[in-house]
Amino acid sequence: MTRSLGHELGPTVGMIGAGQLAQMCVGPAAALGVRFTVLADNAEEPAALVVAQTCIGSKDDPRTVLEFAKSCDVVTFDHELLTPEVMEILNSCGRPVYPSPQSVIYAQDKLAMRQALTNLGIPGPRWTLVESVADAKNFAADVGYPIILKTSRGGYDGKGVWFVSGESDIAAVLKNELPIGSRWLAEEKVNFVRELASQVARSPSNQCVAYPVVQTTQRGGICAEVISPAPDLDPEVAVKAQEIALRIARELDVVGMLAVELFDTSDGVLVNELAMRPHNSGHWSIEGATTSQFENHLRAVLDLPLGSPRATAPWSVMGNILGGNVANLYSAYRHVFARDCELHTHLYGKVVKPGRKVGHVTAVGSDLTDLRNRVNHAVSYFTGEINE
Amino acid sequence: MTRSLGHELGPTVGMIGAGQLAQMCVGPAAALGVRFTVLADNAEEPAALVVAQTCIGSKDDPRTVLEFAKSCDVVTFDHELLTPEVMEILNSCGRPVYPSPQSVIYAQDKLAMRQALTNLGIPGPRWTLVESVADAKNFAADVGYPIILKTSRGGYDGKGVWFVSGESDIAAVLKNELPIGSRWLAEEKVNFVRELASQVARSPSNQCVAYPVVQTTQRGGICAEVISPAPDLDPEVAVKAQEIALRIARELDVVGMLAVELFDTSDGVLVNELAMRPHNSGHWSIEGATTSQFENHLRAVLDLPLGSPRATAPWSVMGNILGGNVANLYSAYRHVFARDCELHTHLYGKVVKPGRKVGHVTAVGSDLTDLRNRVNHAVSYFTGEINE
Repeated sequence: MTRSLGHELGPTVGMIGAGQLAQMCVGPAAALGVRFTVLADNAEEPAALVVAQTCIGSKDDPRTVLEFAKSCDVVTFDHELLTPEVMEILNSCGRPVYPSPQSVIYAQDKLAMRQALTNLGIPGPRWTLVESVADAKNFAADVGYPIILKTSRGGYDGKGVWFVSGESDIAAVLKNELPIGSRWLAEEKVNFVRELASQVARSPSNQCVAYPVVQTTQRGGICAEVISPAPDLDPEVAVKAQEIALRIARELDVVGMLAVELFDTSDGVLVNELAMRPHNSGHWSIEGATTSQFENHLRAVLDLPLGSPRATAPWSVMGNILGGNVANLYSAYRHVFARDCELHTHLYGKVVKPGRKVGHVTAVGSDLTDLRNRVNHAVSYFTGEINE
Repeated sequence: MTRSLGHELGPTVGMIGAGQLAQMCVGPAAALGVRFTVLADNAEEPAALVVAQTCIGSKDDPRTVLEFAKSCDVVTFDHELLTPEVMEILNSCGRPVYPSPQSVIYAQDKLAMRQALTNLGIPGPRWTLVESVADAKNFAADVGYPIILKTSRGGYDGKGVWFVSGESDIAAVLKNELPIGSRWLAEEKVNFVRELASQVARSPSNQCVAYPVVQTTQRGGICAEVISPAPDLDPEVAVKAQEIALRIARELDVVGMLAVELFDTSDGVLVNELAMRPHNSGHWSIEGATTSQFENHLRAVLDLPLGSPRATAPWSVMGNILGGNVANLYSAYRHVFARDCELHTHLYGKVVKPGRKVGHVTAVGSDLTDLRNRVNHAVSYFTGEINE
């Protein structure tokens, strides 16, 4: 941490990736007085639009990544979609990399994650490695249809996931091309009541903080709404969900933010997925928590004491704006802002494409029904579903 | 507002000046999805360190300012220290400029301000134009010593202000060089109980919002502490202070944030100074209000509906970090953050010089004494006055 340009400036945090997660680190990085630089595919990516130091280059090119890493005091990520070659380069780049290549494998590869969590005795759906149609059929014979077939790598926002309702469908799914380094796995279809997410931050010094456990609602495999804290959640289940996230963070040596997506079932919580970075389920924390997930991610990778994750109001509701019929989202501001002067709006500066995450809104307060209605109205207006 | 680079992006707000006020607009601008660019003297200014588009050039050069203005959809300022030539260029640059050159004169020139407020019947200290030692003596004979001599332009943070306790001192003060375009004025020394600040935002559509009235404490002419809301303030006085700010904003056609600094006296409030931009007295609003002064300044100059200025907690306390014995402020983080996980710290990335505003801390909550103690501890640690 000695590469600062002068005594007046803190260290340089470099983030590989320049999407909205990197973009939302800009405010906290400026407030902390640390330099923040991103490795972006192109100058129109959300973080590249707003960051003072953007390096344009491919995250898949080891030399580009190495050069970027050497320009930073600490390296982190806004996504886990990195090749093994790049992770290997980062492992020996001479800079701290958080989460470490050894840890992030469990967020990159669902087979590695399932095996690790099974070894730790952390509850999850039944699963198996699938190397043939017969493997999937045998698994289904055991757990019953429907089953879920997943690629171990490369999936996000519902991509790389197939629901299989009978054995005649298996062969067709397995004919899909696998991402490089990926294998197939099968998981039982969990009969869940709802989905939850448990977020923690962890520093290299092993300090951890746990955010309130939230309820997430997906539509078409993409997060649509997050409520913090999860309504009517049994306090014991909430503590269990936090303990699972804290244990995973420590056992897998995660540094930075960790999001554990969970199924809430009648038999308790089961781990669905892991993300080792700020996560969509924590956007509410910008306005709804004392310290946002973005600030705590920065503090964690800088090995600074973490900020309080405490909620600042009884409820926070976050709604994702997915690309709809409105090309110019800014044109919706006059209506949305005039209707609701307490709503917090975030637009990422992305070209609007159907179903693409292009922004989000958050409302914070004490009347959950009112907050959900207001968020839902704004989201519907931004997507063009309603026009008043 | 038609110069956006694509449908996906909002308009470009250009700010002349790149100090900490411009720096703190970065997060809100990113969240709103608008482009934000600054005109900076050099690349090491606080906003230049964190903004994607920085134009390096002199704010005193009309051609530089004109070129900068033409690259923006709307032009605004982070300070009022602009020459008449530059203001004239801006007046005909073909872009909206907020606050307008016609309005900002009242924040640039204390004589113009005093005359305008006197004409409006808004309460202030007694004052007079001083063109000779005799003028000042005659004024003092009227109001009694001490009197205050000020340059009409160019003063800030206690500069350009002299306390004169007897007539023998007048001639020496008036020998000081006047800034260009500046004249001398005299004001009575107001016997105030404390100082207050009343902030409002106003849009070109004449929508206004008023922030809670705060108490400000100066040390050596520089703001040291702000408490929001001002403790034990008579609600009628609070409303009066808000009404004064709203009336000034409308009568002087201010667009953007307006801060009215006030003396709280046994006879009511008197206007001390005006600032037409985000102001040190409103830094608490980043964490303590639903909408920060920085977001509302951007919304106002973009003629968007304003956000709620409502406080999110009973009390907010802000303490300025002035340059002290600690050169590397970042080195204080481990102690300050570990001691208080709920404190909000902002460092501006400035070289530390004695007495220079280099950052601030804010604490938000319900126990005012506790908040003040915590803020005071952190400030004292950052300045090196204490080391534990």
